[in-house]
Amino acid sequence: MARIAILGGTGSEGLGLGARFGRAGEEVILGSRSEERAAKAVERLRGWVGDGRFSGTTNDRAAAAGDVVFVTVPFAGLDAVIDACRTELEGKIVVDTVVPLRTEDGFFDLQKLPEGSAAEYLQARLPRSRVVAAFKNQSAEKLLDLEAPLEGDVVVCGEDDGARQEVSALVRRLPGLRPIDGGRLRNGRPLEAMTALLLNLNRRHGSRASFRLTGL
Amino acid sequence: MARIAILGGTGSEGLGLGARFGRAGEEVILGSRSEERAAKAVERLRGWVGDGRFSGTTNDRAAAAGDVVFVTVPFAGLDAVIDACRTELEGKIVVDTVVPLRTEDGFFDLQKLPEGSAAEYLQARLPRSRVVAAFKNQSAEKLLDLEAPLEGDVVVCGEDDGARQEVSALVRRLPGLRPIDGGRLRNGRPLEAMTALLLNLNRRHGSRASFRLTGL
Repeated sequence: MARIAILGGTGSEGLGLGARFGRAGEEVILGSRSEERAAKAVERLRGWVGDGRFSGTTNDRAAAAGDVVFVTVPFAGLDAVIDACRTELEGKIVVDTVVPLRTEDGFFDLQKLPEGSAAEYLQARLPRSRVVAAFKNQSAEKLLDLEAPLEGDVVVCGEDDGARQEVSALVRRLPGLRPIDGGRLRNGRPLEAMTALLLNLNRRHGSRASFRLTGL
Repeated sequence: MARIAILGGTGSEGLGLGARFGRAGEEVILGSRSEERAAKAVERLRGWVGDGRFSGTTNDRAAAAGDVVFVTVPFAGLDAVIDACRTELEGKIVVDTVVPLRTEDGFFDLQKLPEGSAAEYLQARLPRSRVVAAFKNQSAEKLLDLEAPLEGDVVVCGEDDGARQEVSALVRRLPGLRPIDGGRLRNGRPLEAMTALLLNLNRRHGSRASFRLTGL
């Protein structure tokens, strides 16, 4: 089984994915800018999932130790992670979960990126990594609520067929989620936009919405 | 009940919606640039739905006669419809189903619009109409295949609360579809992007994909 590193793993999306993968029996290495905060986050995960295999360290060490490396930082923190871990991420599968959100008058929207999406932004800056866009639409809040069953589809996009397959296999480790092969990385653009829609719907309807593809 | 006008109603999306609404008992007026083609399209609808209430005429007359007016032309034909029907559309609910698609190397993508979406493009040019974005993700092919049950959610966006409610009521007339109140018009942007994703997935998987929101 792959060791899963989660950069920015002390944030809620990273913690939520860490808890879910740890409960599924995967080995999880949380990365953080601060070793101390990583250690604290690991304590939280152990409190939730007593028998999980968790460890914590700095982002660059986590990137070096992981076989598959998730990036779960806010978009504003992406450059710092890229700079700190560029060498460690070479040749690896890098799972990009980042959505470049912005809000305007309480309305969620996306920042316009010349690359077209956060995933393409990341791939352009890590040309030797195999970037896969996935988990763009799973809310941190729901991932963290371990009593709540997950639901919805995880569309997996990336230029490397084998990398998409490996990430799809990881998706299948989480009960309730279904991986959908989305093909090329740029096909992940609408998924980032959908997160803005889901957040606006959640605000309007008091929901925790996700989506499922039908006819597939 | 509202009389439904469908501008560009001789295209496949318009024909499909016309057939489905006609079968549901609604009165449908197909609009076309050519009266003759409208008449031929009405003959086709009558062949599929014998007891439907269908008529056909020019786009401007259809716009004048309809209580709710669907726009189902390709994006490239939108300006011509706006110019031809501006006065007739004043004060009316205009249901925008248009997705500004483009293809590049066989890959579906969206044209970039300064307004943010086709729906906002239309509302900006028809400030006295109540534009509602809806049916952005229902494939023409599936609408036309009357044996196939519809499925998926229709997110309904627009600035006018009452207009969204009226269009939501029309969505409920079509078995299998569920309206979701999406709030403001700009929230329809991701829905246009999702159509590009669905078309790319269909090409990859040989599917006729739609999507359903969960947790709502």
